[in-house]
Amino acid sequence: MPLPVPVLPEGVDPAWLPPAAFRAVGSGRTLIRGSGPLVETVHGEVAEACRRFGGRVVRDAEPEGGAYDLVLDLGVHDLGDEDFTLARQGGTTAVTASGGRGLLYGLFHVVRLGEAAFTGERERERHHPALALRMLDHWDNVAVHPVMGQVERGYAGGSLFWEDGRARGDLERVRAYGRLLAACGINAVAVNNVNVHETEAHLLTDRIGEVAAIAEALQPYGIRTHLSVSFAAPVLLGGLPTADPLDEGVRGWWAEATGAVYEAIPDFGGYVVKADSEGQPGPFAYGRSHADGANLLAAALEPYGGTVHWRAFVYDHCQDWRDRGTDRARAAYDHFVPLDGAFADNAVLQVKHGPIDFQVREPVSPLIGAMPGTRLAVELQVTQEYTGQQRHVCWLGPMWSEVLRFPAEQGSSVGELTRGGLIAVSNAGDDPFWTGHPLAQANLYTFGRLAWRPDAEPGEVLDEWIGLTFGPGPEAGLHAVFDGSWRTYEKYTAPLGVGFMVQPGHHYGPSVDGYEYSPWGTYHFADRDGIGVDRSVATGTGYAGQYAKPWAELYESPDTCPDELLLFFHHVSYGHTLHSGKTVIQHIYDTHFEGVAEVEEARELWASLAGLVDPVRHTRVAERYEEQLRSAREWRDQINSYFFRKSGVPDERGRRVHP
Amino acid sequence: MPLPVPVLPEGVDPAWLPPAAFRAVGSGRTLIRGSGPLVETVHGEVAEACRRFGGRVVRDAEPEGGAYDLVLDLGVHDLGDEDFTLARQGGTTAVTASGGRGLLYGLFHVVRLGEAAFTGERERERHHPALALRMLDHWDNVAVHPVMGQVERGYAGGSLFWEDGRARGDLERVRAYGRLLAACGINAVAVNNVNVHETEAHLLTDRIGEVAAIAEALQPYGIRTHLSVSFAAPVLLGGLPTADPLDEGVRGWWAEATGAVYEAIPDFGGYVVKADSEGQPGPFAYGRSHADGANLLAAALEPYGGTVHWRAFVYDHCQDWRDRGTDRARAAYDHFVPLDGAFADNAVLQVKHGPIDFQVREPVSPLIGAMPGTRLAVELQVTQEYTGQQRHVCWLGPMWSEVLRFPAEQGSSVGELTRGGLIAVSNAGDDPFWTGHPLAQANLYTFGRLAWRPDAEPGEVLDEWIGLTFGPGPEAGLHAVFDGSWRTYEKYTAPLGVGFMVQPGHHYGPSVDGYEYSPWGTYHFADRDGIGVDRSVATGTGYAGQYAKPWAELYESPDTCPDELLLFFHHVSYGHTLHSGKTVIQHIYDTHFEGVAEVEEARELWASLAGLVDPVRHTRVAERYEEQLRSAREWRDQINSYFFRKSGVPDERGRRVHP
Repeated sequence: MPLPVPVLPEGVDPAWLPPAAFRAVGSGRTLIRGSGPLVETVHGEVAEACRRFGGRVVRDAEPEGGAYDLVLDLGVHDLGDEDFTLARQGGTTAVTASGGRGLLYGLFHVVRLGEAAFTGERERERHHPALALRMLDHWDNVAVHPVMGQVERGYAGGSLFWEDGRARGDLERVRAYGRLLAACGINAVAVNNVNVHETEAHLLTDRIGEVAAIAEALQPYGIRTHLSVSFAAPVLLGGLPTADPLDEGVRGWWAEATGAVYEAIPDFGGYVVKADSEGQPGPFAYGRSHADGANLLAAALEPYGGTVHWRAFVYDHCQDWRDRGTDRARAAYDHFVPLDGAFADNAVLQVKHGPIDFQVREPVSPLIGAMPGTRLAVELQVTQEYTGQQRHVCWLGPMWSEVLRFPAEQGSSVGELTRGGLIAVSNAGDDPFWTGHPLAQANLYTFGRLAWRPDAEPGEVLDEWIGLTFGPGPEAGLHAVFDGSWRTYEKYTAPLGVGFMVQPGHHYGPSVDGYEYSPWGTYHFADRDGIGVDRSVATGTGYAGQYAKPWAELYESPDTCPDELLLFFHHVSYGHTLHSGKTVIQHIYDTHFEGVAEVEEARELWASLAGLVDPVRHTRVAERYEEQLRSAREWRDQINSYFFRKSGVPDERGRRVHP
Repeated sequence: MPLPVPVLPEGVDPAWLPPAAFRAVGSGRTLIRGSGPLVETVHGEVAEACRRFGGRVVRDAEPEGGAYDLVLDLGVHDLGDEDFTLARQGGTTAVTASGGRGLLYGLFHVVRLGEAAFTGERERERHHPALALRMLDHWDNVAVHPVMGQVERGYAGGSLFWEDGRARGDLERVRAYGRLLAACGINAVAVNNVNVHETEAHLLTDRIGEVAAIAEALQPYGIRTHLSVSFAAPVLLGGLPTADPLDEGVRGWWAEATGAVYEAIPDFGGYVVKADSEGQPGPFAYGRSHADGANLLAAALEPYGGTVHWRAFVYDHCQDWRDRGTDRARAAYDHFVPLDGAFADNAVLQVKHGPIDFQVREPVSPLIGAMPGTRLAVELQVTQEYTGQQRHVCWLGPMWSEVLRFPAEQGSSVGELTRGGLIAVSNAGDDPFWTGHPLAQANLYTFGRLAWRPDAEPGEVLDEWIGLTFGPGPEAGLHAVFDGSWRTYEKYTAPLGVGFMVQPGHHYGPSVDGYEYSPWGTYHFADRDGIGVDRSVATGTGYAGQYAKPWAELYESPDTCPDELLLFFHHVSYGHTLHSGKTVIQHIYDTHFEGVAEVEEARELWASLAGLVDPVRHTRVAERYEEQLRSAREWRDQINSYFFRKSGVPDERGRRVHP
C-alpha cells in the first residue's frame, strides 16, 4: 500500500517540497519496482504527484521501452543502502538502488532536477553520501524549562515533538518534518535536548513509548531516532547507588534498559550524551575517563547496532575571569586527545566545529585531525543562537563549507576526517514556516546537503533550495539576499574572531562586556590600549600549539594569523595594522558601518521582490528585516562607542560614533 | 473576648516579639479599661504574657492605688486615634489612649521598655506618630510571574498572602505578620504588586473576597488594607471601551467598583497606582494628566474616606542611550511639579526617595519640597533589591535617616514635608525568618519606627530592635555588625553615587556596563578619561537646577558637590581630586579594598557571637556572610579591573588589581 504523503495543517509552509516541485515527476508515467516500507513511501510520493499533475504510476510491471518516463527500481544492484544511480536513455529516466533509502533519495534527486531529469540523455551517475550519519539534534525539552523554555535555543515556536510535559501527538506534522529532512538527505534525529532534565530522563525507560511513536513516524522517511540520555540514569531512574561506568550493576542496568529501548524501537539509532559539561553528570564523578563513560553505553548498544554520540563539549564553566592561564578553547583537546584509540567502535565523539561555542567566527577545532584512532563527528549549529536567532538573515552555508573544506591534517579536510558523520542542532519548531524566519529554512536545507556532500558548492545548494522553494522568478534577487549574509552578520557584531560580545543568558543583541567577567571562559580582555586573547605558545595560553602544521605556526604569530581570527589568537593594540592595511580600530569602525549598510541594501532588495514571493512569506521576512536593521544599528553603535570610549581613537572617516 | 495571640507555625521566628520580650508585662498585674476590637487584641496580648510569666489581667475594674502594675486605659482622653500617653506614679504604669490603635501602640511601647517601664516614676509623656500613614507595599503577585516570580524583588521565600494563583489562606501567619508590624508602628499594607498583571487585576472585583479575608486578619492590629489596581481596570474588568479618566462611564464604573470594595472591606484604605510607568497603563493614553488620573480614583474613594496613592515613578524606560539630553533623574519633577495643586485632597503622590531607583546612594528627590500644594508620601525600599538582596547585611537605617532629615526646602526636612506618609516596599515573605536574612528584620523594624518618628536616632532604633529580638548578651557585637553595614555596601559596589552597575534583570552582583547601553536611562558614561553624568545646569542635563537653594548651587559645581554624589552630578576625570584629597580612581581602589576588609571583619565579629545567638539563626547568618564576602570580592575585583583597564592608572598602594 502506498504511504500517503503527510497532510500539512492549514497555514503550514511546504518549505522546499511545495506541490509545484513535483510537476515534472507527476506529469509522466512512472514505474516502481521492488518492495519494502520505503518503497511504499516512494510510491505515495509519486502517486500524490500524479494525482495533482495527471501522470500515472504502476508497480512491478516489466519496463517496456519508452513506455515509462521514470523507472524507480529497487533491486540487487550492489549499491550501499543509501546509494542510488541515475541514468536516462531512450526517453526513460532510471533510478536504481539497493535499499529503500537509496530509492527515496533517488526520487528526491529527480524532484530537485525537475524537468531537467526528463530531457536528453544522461550517463549513469552513482550518488553516494560522503557521510553515513547526517543527523539533527533537537534541543527540545519535554517539560517547559523555567529558563530555557520548550526548546533550548529555539527560535521557531514550540517543539515539533513535545508540548508542556508530554508528546504533542501531532504525528502528521512529525511525518511532514521527516519528509523534508529526507528530501535534503538527513537520516537521523535526536528528539530531545542534550541537557537532560528530570522529566526528559524518563524518556529512556517508562516514557520510551512516546519516543517510539515519533520513531515510527520518521521511519518511512529513512530516519532513525536517537535519544539524549542522562549519564546518571542508573541513579535517577534505576535507584542504583552509583552510575560508575566500571560498576557491574551499572553496566547491567544499561544493558537491560537498552534492550527495552530496542524492543520498543527496533531501528533505534543510539544515545547522545552531554556528560561532565555545564552541570550535566558524567564519569568524572567516579574518577573515570570519558572513554570509560562512552564505552559503557557503547557496550549496551553494541548488540543492536546502535551508536553512542559522546559530546566533546567539556570545559570548566566555573572559570575565574581573573585567571588568564585557563583557556576554554584548549579544553576539548586537552580532555580528549589523550583518550584517542580508547573509544569503542560504536562510540562517536561529537565535536563542535570550533573550540568555543558556535560563534560567527571561530577557528576549526584542533581536535579534528588530532584523534586518528577515534570516530569523530562534527557538530554544527543550524539554530542561530549566536547568529541572529532567526530574526536576522544569516545563511551559514559558506561558514560551514569553509569548516568542512578546511585542510585540518596532512591535506585531509574536515569533511574527510569526520568519519562519525555530520551533526547539527536543528532550527525547526512548530512555527508555520518551520524555522521562524522563512529564510532560515535555507540553513536547514544546506546543512542536509552538505552532510551528504561536504565538498558541495554552497552557492549551488542555495540555488537548489531557492528553486525548489520559490520556483522561477525571484532566484537572482534571493541569491543576492543570502549570499553575503553571514559576512554581513560578522561585520556588525563581534570583530576579528573575538566572539561572545552578546547579552548574557539569551545571547541576542550586543553586550561587549556581557561575558567579560563571567565564569564561562569567554573573554576579550579589552583595555584602553588593545584587545584580544593571547593564545600563542610563546606568550599566551598555548592553544595555537594544539594545531597540526602548518596551522600551529600560522596562528602563532600575529604577522601570519588571518585577520578574521586575529583577536581569537592574539592581544594587539588598537593601532595594530591588519593584513588589510587597516588598523584594528579602523577595521572595527569600517566593518560596523558596512555591515549596517549591507543590511539596509538587503532589506531594499527583499522589498523589490514583493511581486515575486507569496505575500505571507514576504511580509514576515520584511518584518524581520526591520528588526534585523534595528539590531544591526544597535550592534554598530554599541561596538563603536565601546571601542571609541576605550581607545580614544576617532573614526578616520569622521562618521558618527556616539561618545 | 480577648483575641488570642497568633500561633506561629513550628520553626517560624518570632522576630522582635519573642515571648521573653513580654516578661515584664506578663509578670505583673494589669488592668485594661475600655472596649472595642483592638482592646480585645490588647487583652489577648497581656493575657498570653501573663499565662507565660505568672501575672494577672483584669478588665474594667476601678483602679485601686497600687493594686496594678499596669493600667491600659481607653477612654475619652482627647488624643488622636493613634496617640497614647505613658506615665508612672505610685508603682503603677499608666497608658491612656483615645483610640484602640493608640492603646495597642502604648502596650507595645511598654513591651519595648521592658523592666524600665516598671521602675521609678515617669512624667506623663504623650506619644504621637509624626506621620499618619506608615505603610508597606507588597510587590506580591497572586499568580507566579514568569520572570518576576511570586514576589517581585522578593528575597524571603514566597508571599505571605498569595501562592500560585490564589490566596495562601494561612491567615494565622498573616495575623502574626500584622502583629509584628503593629509592634513597630506600621498601620497600612498594600497586599499586591504595583505592577498589576492580569490575574491580580481581578482582586478589585470578583476576587475582592480574598483581599477581604486578609484585611480581616490585619484589622485587629490596626492595619488597614490597600490594593494596587490597574488604571485600565474599566477596560480589563468592566468591558468598557475606554479607561479615560474624564469619561462619565469610567467614573461611574470606578464609583460602583469602589462601593463594592467597601462593602467587602469597610475600613479599606484605598488604591495604589503605578500608571504610565514601565509599561503599566495610565492617563497618557487618553491625553489626560496624572492629576486627572489620580483624581478619578480619589473621587471614587472619597465617599468612604479612602485614599489613592499615585506613584510618581514615571519616566521613559525606552530611552536611547545615545541621547545624552534625556535624563531619567529629571522625569518625576518634570512630570509632576506642573501639576502641583491639581490633586484631590485624598490623592497622595508617592515619590521614591531618590530620583532614580533605590540605589545605595542617590540624592534626595527634588520633587520633595517642590510641590507644596500636594500631599506627598516618600517611598523607601526595605526589600534589598539593589542593596544585597538579603544575602548581604546592609542595614538601611542611616540612609533613610539621612533622607528623612535632609532639609529639602526652607529648612523643612523630608520627614516634615511628607504629609502623605512614609511608605516602603516590604522585605517580608513566608521565609521562616520572615526576611530571608535574619538580620534584614532590622530594616523592616527600623522603617516602621522611622515612619512613626522620622527624626529618631537610627542607632537607638537599632538597639531597640536588638534588645527585643536577641535579649541581653550580644548587643554590642550586634550593633557593630550593623552599624557601618550600609557604608560598607556602598564602598564595595558602585562608587561616588554613580549607581546601577548591576547585573541586568535580577540586579544582583556587579556588571559595570550592564545598564550602560540599555533603554533604562541608567548610564555612567565611563571612558578612558573619566566617568559620571553631567547633570549641571551649565553644561549638563539641568537636573541640578530642579533643587531649591542652597542645593541647586551646591550640586551645580564639582567643587561643592559632596564627594559621595559627585558622579551622580558630574562627569570628571579619573585624576579629579575629591574633597577627601584622593583622586577619583584612587578612591575607587581604596573603597573597594576597604569594603571587602570590612565584610571580613563583620563576618569574624558575627562568628564571635556564636555562643550568644541561637544556633539556627547564627548558622543562617554565617552562611550568608560567606556569600556576602564572595560577592563583595567579586564586586571589588570587577570594579577595580574595569577602571584599571579603562584608566590605565595603577593603584598607588600596589594592591592586586587584576589586569
